[in-house]
Amino acid sequence: MDFSSFLTSLGTSFVLFLVLMFLFTWLSRRPGNHVVYYPNRILKGLEPYEGVRVTRNPFAWIREAVSSTEAEVIRFSGVDTAVYFVYLTTVVGILVLSGVILLPVLLPIAYTAPTVMKANETTSEGTFNELDKLSMGHVGEKSPRLWVFLAATYWVSFVTYYLLWKAYKHVSNLRAEALMSPEVKNEQFAVLVRDIPSLPQGQTRKEQVDSYFRAIYPDTYYRSMVVTDNKEVNKIYEELEGYRKNLARAEAIYAESKGTASPEGTRPTAKTGFLGLVGKKVDAIEYYDEKIRELIPKLESEQKATLKDKQQSAAVIFFNNRVTAAAASQSLHDTMVDNWTVIDAPEARQLLWTNLSKNFYERLIRQYLIYFIVFLTIFFYMIPIGLISALTTLANLKKLLPFLKPLLDQAIVRTVLGAYLPQLALIIFLALLPSFLLFLSKAEGIPSLSHAQRAASGKYFYFSVLNVFIGVTVAHSLFDTLKEIEKKPNSAVPLLAESLPGSATFFLTFVALKFFVGYGLELSRIVPLIIFHLKKKYLCKTEAEVKEAWSPGDLGYGTRFPNDMLILTIVLCYSVIAPIIILFGLLYFGLGWLVLRNQVLKVYVPSYESYGRMWPHMYNRIMASMVLYQLTMVGYLAAKKFFYTALLIPLPILSFLFVYFCTTKYYRFFQSTALDVACRELKETPNLEGVFRSFIPPSLSSEKGDEDQFEDALSQVSRSGSVV
Amino acid sequence: MDFSSFLTSLGTSFVLFLVLMFLFTWLSRRPGNHVVYYPNRILKGLEPYEGVRVTRNPFAWIREAVSSTEAEVIRFSGVDTAVYFVYLTTVVGILVLSGVILLPVLLPIAYTAPTVMKANETTSEGTFNELDKLSMGHVGEKSPRLWVFLAATYWVSFVTYYLLWKAYKHVSNLRAEALMSPEVKNEQFAVLVRDIPSLPQGQTRKEQVDSYFRAIYPDTYYRSMVVTDNKEVNKIYEELEGYRKNLARAEAIYAESKGTASPEGTRPTAKTGFLGLVGKKVDAIEYYDEKIRELIPKLESEQKATLKDKQQSAAVIFFNNRVTAAAASQSLHDTMVDNWTVIDAPEARQLLWTNLSKNFYERLIRQYLIYFIVFLTIFFYMIPIGLISALTTLANLKKLLPFLKPLLDQAIVRTVLGAYLPQLALIIFLALLPSFLLFLSKAEGIPSLSHAQRAASGKYFYFSVLNVFIGVTVAHSLFDTLKEIEKKPNSAVPLLAESLPGSATFFLTFVALKFFVGYGLELSRIVPLIIFHLKKKYLCKTEAEVKEAWSPGDLGYGTRFPNDMLILTIVLCYSVIAPIIILFGLLYFGLGWLVLRNQVLKVYVPSYESYGRMWPHMYNRIMASMVLYQLTMVGYLAAKKFFYTALLIPLPILSFLFVYFCTTKYYRFFQSTALDVACRELKETPNLEGVFRSFIPPSLSSEKGDEDQFEDALSQVSRSGSVV
Repeated sequence: MDFSSFLTSLGTSFVLFLVLMFLFTWLSRRPGNHVVYYPNRILKGLEPYEGVRVTRNPFAWIREAVSSTEAEVIRFSGVDTAVYFVYLTTVVGILVLSGVILLPVLLPIAYTAPTVMKANETTSEGTFNELDKLSMGHVGEKSPRLWVFLAATYWVSFVTYYLLWKAYKHVSNLRAEALMSPEVKNEQFAVLVRDIPSLPQGQTRKEQVDSYFRAIYPDTYYRSMVVTDNKEVNKIYEELEGYRKNLARAEAIYAESKGTASPEGTRPTAKTGFLGLVGKKVDAIEYYDEKIRELIPKLESEQKATLKDKQQSAAVIFFNNRVTAAAASQSLHDTMVDNWTVIDAPEARQLLWTNLSKNFYERLIRQYLIYFIVFLTIFFYMIPIGLISALTTLANLKKLLPFLKPLLDQAIVRTVLGAYLPQLALIIFLALLPSFLLFLSKAEGIPSLSHAQRAASGKYFYFSVLNVFIGVTVAHSLFDTLKEIEKKPNSAVPLLAESLPGSATFFLTFVALKFFVGYGLELSRIVPLIIFHLKKKYLCKTEAEVKEAWSPGDLGYGTRFPNDMLILTIVLCYSVIAPIIILFGLLYFGLGWLVLRNQVLKVYVPSYESYGRMWPHMYNRIMASMVLYQLTMVGYLAAKKFFYTALLIPLPILSFLFVYFCTTKYYRFFQSTALDVACRELKETPNLEGVFRSFIPPSLSSEKGDEDQFEDALSQVSRSGSVV
Repeated sequence: MDFSSFLTSLGTSFVLFLVLMFLFTWLSRRPGNHVVYYPNRILKGLEPYEGVRVTRNPFAWIREAVSSTEAEVIRFSGVDTAVYFVYLTTVVGILVLSGVILLPVLLPIAYTAPTVMKANETTSEGTFNELDKLSMGHVGEKSPRLWVFLAATYWVSFVTYYLLWKAYKHVSNLRAEALMSPEVKNEQFAVLVRDIPSLPQGQTRKEQVDSYFRAIYPDTYYRSMVVTDNKEVNKIYEELEGYRKNLARAEAIYAESKGTASPEGTRPTAKTGFLGLVGKKVDAIEYYDEKIRELIPKLESEQKATLKDKQQSAAVIFFNNRVTAAAASQSLHDTMVDNWTVIDAPEARQLLWTNLSKNFYERLIRQYLIYFIVFLTIFFYMIPIGLISALTTLANLKKLLPFLKPLLDQAIVRTVLGAYLPQLALIIFLALLPSFLLFLSKAEGIPSLSHAQRAASGKYFYFSVLNVFIGVTVAHSLFDTLKEIEKKPNSAVPLLAESLPGSATFFLTFVALKFFVGYGLELSRIVPLIIFHLKKKYLCKTEAEVKEAWSPGDLGYGTRFPNDMLILTIVLCYSVIAPIIILFGLLYFGLGWLVLRNQVLKVYVPSYESYGRMWPHMYNRIMASMVLYQLTMVGYLAAKKFFYTALLIPLPILSFLFVYFCTTKYYRFFQSTALDVACRELKETPNLEGVFRSFIPPSLSSEKGDEDQFEDALSQVSRSGSVV
């Protein structure tokens, strides 16, 4: 891509962004669309524009986003989202402070460098253009001007250290404030117990758990809930819920048909066979009604059987105060760590029930096994995909699926498939990758969804940085120099450095073109809007179905963050080599901040709250990028034969010390709740029964509010002592 | 040393051991010596021979040692000592099980090997003898017989894994039993708090601590004791105690003088100047009496001043039950780990008070600084010692200290000094090394003596293994092959392996000659006996002084264990190469077990109890030796050009997995008390006031039992709640 076509693309995507923004302004004002543009506010029972002057100004949303406070973000979207904004703000801060010095200083120095460039050292692979002259590649070998670039490397590093330090402190405070809030948070009164040893003779699981914890916490133990194998009961429950939905739908159709032409209406029919598509035609309302009546006693008896016979070696334990729960989650209970493992309970809604009963060694083995699978995925995913691509050529398709032949023979189908088939496997793989990684992370035996998403996000980060960044950078020079690496394995850093300038332009365009369209689509929500209207018109019959159609989902920072990190890694690594990239990085993160601020306040609804536990991972990955950047600069300056390159060696060491120091000081609070935080006064005496009930999975909760059936797996109420 | 002189030495030292043993039998039967041979029993208020038939049989002590149970060891010498015996028993077990297979199998195979040895491959540096034929060096390169040695390497490893696994479990149970004992152990009700943040305006330190902990533990907090800077008050207290001793002594002398010749007696005199050596002569009793009267009010006012004005940022916190204390010591209290650091309290007697107030970062920096100093000491201690040795020649001594010239000119002095002067610096250094390492460990800021001794013991282990074992082994071939190593740094393992056979004889004699004399002296206690009788006759005047003269001290496993580990490392590493060494190792550890069993039951008095916290260190070091042994075997078999050497590679990996697994499973309980253990019933309601008082350092405890003076640094009694 040469410079003018780059400018054209940039301009086009900017115009596209403006169009999408105006579209957003226009569409979001229409009341029928409010559920798409303001679902978060609506679900919280607020008016879409509460306290906001209605204008036709297309930039109004920017003003609103900028003027919103962190407290508002926490109120509307939780601490986790606020932490994501701390990340964005910190990155913007790093880029602004770096850019303020680097752009006015480095660009003139590079531009005015007297050296004539060698063709293979340009940043645009041979096509000389203005961009090249603005990069470090324009400065000759051993030039004293390189001193300035060396100093710039230090500047960026120190700016990053300073802002990260402040951010870690800030996030730690956010977490502390949230945890010490006077609101009763159910999970703060509970802990998870896993690896309960096998049952002693003549005791039920419930008795075993109760007697164990009552001995240790005579005054503060409330009751326990033994985890059961809910597979069967969940199946019945889902079936029942399905019939209920169908019944509601059938009734709505019936009511609708009554209103208009025939006052009697037409009773809807249903088929009894597979998926309602085949089988006998029956009256739908009666059929579903009967099915529900059949299933309710079945569910109840299955609930009883589950609670009685399917108890597993895990339990949720409830205490009557927060301090005891916090201390218990940090304490060793049995002399062996593989017995009675106690950890803090996540929110009930994000518990991964099926993982709770996995034992200590199973978890350990699964973890390492999955690390190994991820390692294979990261490094060798191209092999199966290459094979599949090779097999799924048009010719092969015709041979394997002969009935498709008439279709494949059409010219237009052939053209499209011919263009996309080769990469089809890759495209599908990349689209499914986040889900695959989340699936793997869950399979590790992690007990909560937020933790699994953090783990998946980490895996995705390694995948994208290793493959996209290092892969692209090294790829074009790898095969030529593979033999060289074999000879001296230490040459990986200089190799990376030498191939850097060649990739600068690629990444510049990658960053520049990525954000306008992406954030434009994000802001305008065109796709969800269309889907919602289609669903509402053709599919939804009941209120519940409409609500489900516009339900917005969460921010999904599990996949959003690794993508941001990829951009940040690229921008950091090129910040000194081609400082102009800082501008595009700033645009990406600044625009992201604005658009997402709008979205979290109005659209997305968080699906869990982990009180900022993502932050240490964000911190570690920013620092990993930092070290990669510093090593890159060492290698690149060395490749420029700059004699004082060794002066950069202290930087990575400093980075490791900084990580060690921050982690020592701050990290433990992100692992467990400090008692000083847990001991703050509550606004009201907690309703412990309510806390307990909130952890009962819906498939097990009784419809009649009858408590007797829980006595098997759920321990009885102990005396409720004093409450902190 | 050739074979016959080795046998002579061995015989001589065995005879010496027999002589010392008979001496022990004879001496220990004399009532006047009982305080030297049975101090532990006497201090416990038992008769020396309680329940034991008095015989003149010189082997009676062996029967007693063998028939003693672990419970007795714990009763007389504590869990720490019992753990040391678990170590000895485990090592004996490893050597027996290894020897049973290795000796009958490997020795014939080596002896009958047909290969003619090359001169430089013998184990006795050129002198052919029977010993050489019994070693692996006698087997030729690439011989299929090496298969058996490879299998033997596996056998020794698996025996070690199995016994260590059992031992870790056993020690864990010992620790659990001791900690769940129904006896009230004061330290189980206390935790240490360090890094208390700076004082808020208008609060005293005591109020700050009390309000902080009372908020977190409203029902279980008892009271606190703020740590004070006791330097001044200790000085006065020691002065006072010194005068008290002197007074008692003077009175004893006076009473003695009265009894015999003159009924009036002669009042002893003292000199008032430096060390009682110069100055005015005065009546001793009056003088000391007056001094004591002067010092008591001074001490009291200093006590008050200390408690009021010298409070530091650390405190001991007392709870009214063991569970809360155990949970508190494991919980994060402040959001930052460098504030309100809470750890479990060691026994009061082993608290290193001056270290308590050192803050988090000071401790961190001190730790790394001291690691660096230890690193320098281990690797470069020969340089200053070499310099000192070079300077302190006889000629130099005469020049520097001319007044010694007449002495140095005598022939006998010259001969002795001539022989020992060159190594004098080394001898002094090695004698002072354990104290120096303990001093360094204390300077790290470690809060308890047992922890400091563990740390010092680790340093000593590294010193001895690196210097003695690797040093001696490599030394004689190092300088020749230094250039080779420079060329390929990976050649360290083969180098070690090639130089192994050359050192085998050296270590065989080293192990064989070390134990007989050492354990003979240990058993007979000749040196303490002579010192005691000399002191009793010429120095001791009062009962207290006599008691001090025979006070036995503790087992001192801080230095004993690293020496054992050095022997074990040598024996393990040569176990397959020269299996005969197993016999000597067995003798060393077997005899050690017998002699020390006698000593701990009758002689040594433990100076602290850490409930077996030394064990994980023992375990780790045995495994470190194991890995060294396995790597040695890889290197040595490779040097033998044995093609299947690679089959040994899984062994070190297996060792690391084993360490990882054991550490994961067992280690945490050695760091902190499991709550299940802490929650066991106590025999009696603990006297919390007594628990609290036991932590008051003697220099601060009031003589009058007056409690008012503590109100400044020591918080008042809170309501005493329920007791677990």
